Amino acid sequence: MKLDLKEFYMLMVRPTVVISTVSPNGVSNAAPFSFCSPVATRPKPLFGFCCEVKHDTWRNIQDNREFVVNLVGEDFGPLMEVMERDFPYEVSEIEECGLTETEARQVKPPRIGEAYAWLECRMTRYVDLSERNVWIMGEVLEAEVKDGAFDEVVDVEKVKPLNHIAGEFFVTEMKFTKFNRA
Amino acid sequence: MKLDLKEFYMLMVRPTVVISTVSPNGVSNAAPFSFCSPVATRPKPLFGFCCEVKHDTWRNIQDNREFVVNLVGEDFGPLMEVMERDFPYEVSEIEECGLTETEARQVKPPRIGEAYAWLECRMTRYVDLSERNVWIMGEVLEAEVKDGAFDEVVDVEKVKPLNHIAGEFFVTEMKFTKFNRA
Repeated sequence: MKLDLKEFYMLMVRPTVVISTVSPNGVSNAAPFSFCSPVATRPKPLFGFCCEVKHDTWRNIQDNREFVVNLVGEDFGPLMEVMERDFPYEVSEIEECGLTETEARQVKPPRIGEAYAWLECRMTRYVDLSERNVWIMGEVLEAEVKDGAFDEVVDVEKVKPLNHIAGEFFVTEMKFTKFNRA
Repeated sequence: MKLDLKEFYMLMVRPTVVISTVSPNGVSNAAPFSFCSPVATRPKPLFGFCCEVKHDTWRNIQDNREFVVNLVGEDFGPLMEVMERDFPYEVSEIEECGLTETEARQVKPPRIGEAYAWLECRMTRYVDLSERNVWIMGEVLEAEVKDGAFDEVVDVEKVKPLNHIAGEFFVTEMKFTKFNRA
């Protein structure tokens, strides 16, 4: 079955991350993204994501280059609707969602306390994709995970990562499988 | 718990895709990747992934810009070990794995018949990340899914997408959940 090309992403199950940034006045912003991926681990660890150019996230990153990637579990599912609302600039989605801001170690944007892990990043470069979108890449300066949520790799059966397919379709229940590697 | 920065990707569950390319002599190549993501849907649908510069995939894409993203299910899990082996250039991993090459509609690299969906892509640009890696972005020219594997979105409970965490840790068993969107 051929798909409308705009729907190609509906074929993949991808991590939903919540990215927090901060305005020049120190007001935090947070928004969910699922067009995102680790980009490299060496020589520098890099994380990348696609952002709309008119989005507050991009406005803040252009100002100070910093962002925190909050890795979130299924408890964030019911918050997606609130977090995506078109609040005015400098209204904090973290506050509107009743979530907790905690201090990051190396960057100004806050971590969201309820996430299961955090990547503190500084933008190293970006690619203008169109008038609409930009692909942002940042160096990972800190990576931290909640105690008890990591044993060789993230414990997905415990943290139930909020992964997205499209629209209202998500995946949170997943089970480990092992396959040999070369 | 702080993580070694090189391990940050072990916090996320990401699609494992198998990318097929073709050499100037018409010999196919295929390799698995999991640092990858949809990059944009409009104005052009774009898919991106990280590739080692010395990899046959990059050698072939530099020659003719074309690649097929084969989206694969858990039946590809036991093949990872073979597909990753360091075969000489112009030994086809598709053949070595006993998989089926089928013709793509718009590009020269073959589709892998046993995948559940295919994205036919042409590279539009790339970003040199380091001496080691390149981030490749391609326009999606065709997106097609096996009959019966898509109903509003991909039927993950049926196709059991091969998602990767790190090393031998994968996820294939997943269940749909719905959350409202703004």
